[in-house]
Amino acid sequence: MKRCRNGEIWDFEAMATGREVILGLDGGTTSTVCICMPVISMSQPLPDPLPLLARAVAGCSNHNSVGEDAARETLEQVMADALSKSGSSRSAVRAVCLAVSGVNHPTDQQRILNWLRDIFPRHVRLYVHNDAVAALACGTMGQLHGCVLIAGTGTIAYGFTEDGRDARAAGAGPILGDWGSGYGIAAQALTAVIRAYDGRGPHTMLTSNILRTLDLSSPDELIGWTYADPSWARIAALVPEVVSCAEAGDEVANRILRDSVQELALSVKAVVQRLGLCGEDGTDSFPLVMVGGVLEANSRWDIGKEVIKYISKEYSGAFPIRPKVEPAVGAALLAWNSSMKESKKEAYIR
Amino acid sequence: MKRCRNGEIWDFEAMATGREVILGLDGGTTSTVCICMPVISMSQPLPDPLPLLARAVAGCSNHNSVGEDAARETLEQVMADALSKSGSSRSAVRAVCLAVSGVNHPTDQQRILNWLRDIFPRHVRLYVHNDAVAALACGTMGQLHGCVLIAGTGTIAYGFTEDGRDARAAGAGPILGDWGSGYGIAAQALTAVIRAYDGRGPHTMLTSNILRTLDLSSPDELIGWTYADPSWARIAALVPEVVSCAEAGDEVANRILRDSVQELALSVKAVVQRLGLCGEDGTDSFPLVMVGGVLEANSRWDIGKEVIKYISKEYSGAFPIRPKVEPAVGAALLAWNSSMKESKKEAYIR
Repeated sequence: MKRCRNGEIWDFEAMATGREVILGLDGGTTSTVCICMPVISMSQPLPDPLPLLARAVAGCSNHNSVGEDAARETLEQVMADALSKSGSSRSAVRAVCLAVSGVNHPTDQQRILNWLRDIFPRHVRLYVHNDAVAALACGTMGQLHGCVLIAGTGTIAYGFTEDGRDARAAGAGPILGDWGSGYGIAAQALTAVIRAYDGRGPHTMLTSNILRTLDLSSPDELIGWTYADPSWARIAALVPEVVSCAEAGDEVANRILRDSVQELALSVKAVVQRLGLCGEDGTDSFPLVMVGGVLEANSRWDIGKEVIKYISKEYSGAFPIRPKVEPAVGAALLAWNSSMKESKKEAYIR
Repeated sequence: MKRCRNGEIWDFEAMATGREVILGLDGGTTSTVCICMPVISMSQPLPDPLPLLARAVAGCSNHNSVGEDAARETLEQVMADALSKSGSSRSAVRAVCLAVSGVNHPTDQQRILNWLRDIFPRHVRLYVHNDAVAALACGTMGQLHGCVLIAGTGTIAYGFTEDGRDARAAGAGPILGDWGSGYGIAAQALTAVIRAYDGRGPHTMLTSNILRTLDLSSPDELIGWTYADPSWARIAALVPEVVSCAEAGDEVANRILRDSVQELALSVKAVVQRLGLCGEDGTDSFPLVMVGGVLEANSRWDIGKEVIKYISKEYSGAFPIRPKVEPAVGAALLAWNSSMKESKKEAYIR
């Protein structure tokens, strides 16, 4: 283990116990969560609730947003916080899984692995993934198998076969057509308001509802509102208005939500198809993990349930899961699972 | 006439002749053009070519982009340049028409009129419009009647009745669904490439064509390329690739262009309908001015021609015009026309 740049952040280790632990980290664009768990037996069923030693939270750790150095500093600090809170030290760590948004290429993965290697002792097993992988693992309790559909401000479908092949669909952002996302739904609703106003589209309840929510008096003020701040999350925050109009029977809002269901289902189907998760006859069982605000139940219009219906018609073996633990826990379980598999393989080779 | 802030920019006036002139200005987000014309007889036909005394060019004059002060300074300077080049002075100006992008509300119009009034002597007639109005006037040679369709990076349809009512459709930018625009066409093409790549859409020639143009090796690199620079014009610059794929028979590219034609035609129809430009039985004659890169002819796929076909089916009186003079000339003709009408009205009242 080399000396790390910010030596002082690890000073607490002098007081640490020797209990063996695992670290799981979920790093997104808004926040980063690190979980410290004791080493547990991975035999099913897992203890419920899972024993967690500590949870630490930090800001953005996406290197595309804050730059390489700031991202690394945030990641190192939040891991140190979690270990410090749990009274453990780096030498007590058995495995670490970092699931960070912005990790899209093997080169991103390798860069992060290189500096992680400098922080931890040699015996620690290290894993780096895209944050969608932690979302899958929090539904499958650490198994890297099946498909996860994430739909919040953005959307992505990500899947793994049991032999380690992966595939993704969507996740390319609003310009490149992630229409099923929260941003996509809200942008289509705003467009529908403009179209109704200038005579290109039917009247819709969305007009009064959205203008009231944004405290605007006329649809042409939406142009200024939209371009004053290009944040996708600010626009995606209008999804509840679309859902409530749809629930009140507005046809335009209903069409937008039905289209969103189709788009989201199409992303899942693309991943399932490419990986052959459903087997040759289309009936094999596989986990379908559903994560994110857009997929959560509303009083009547439940986008997640509609997506599942759509998928189940085609793939009878799709097994829908709404995770009960957070993605950082998924990352920790994945770290432990992967490390156990590697240990077994190494024992076999010896 | 009050002293203007930048007194020195008008120093040339001491040398000016007394010949009466008109100023027409077309101010956009990329550049601003000011034309100085001698006073001519507005009886038809107009002289061809039109007598122009001077043409001056400056940068952006959209107050939303550069701020109020910088916009005002640019506008004043480019008018001074045009007058100086033509050897005229402010007291020789009969009428000025400023057609500037970003003028959307009567309050924008009034603010600009207020400071214009400080620059010119009291007898000068002043007119302020949105830049789409200059585009209409350059097709109608100064008549404020009919509908203009502009489709470049963005798109807008704008129309006027002979008694001065106006209406617009689209022009709300890409987030708010201007899908027929150059940006809209190109963004849909990029989306089609991503969808083909991740298994959500059919194979398309657009993939190899666009990757070659952008010097990228894989569709997933498009994500980085797209978000590295959010300029709409940079994305809209891919329209020729879509047209060439469509001309080579690619079905995906053809569908994108057909959809664009529908969207553009829908904007025109909304304006024509709201203003009743086609008369009660739908057969009245009205000018339909077509402006912008997207509407220009290509070897086989002519988007502008297809839009005209579509509109003419519904409104047999639509009279398509592809302007031969630039919008600043349209603004000058409009200034002269409006000022003649006002003079007549005043003479009648006296």
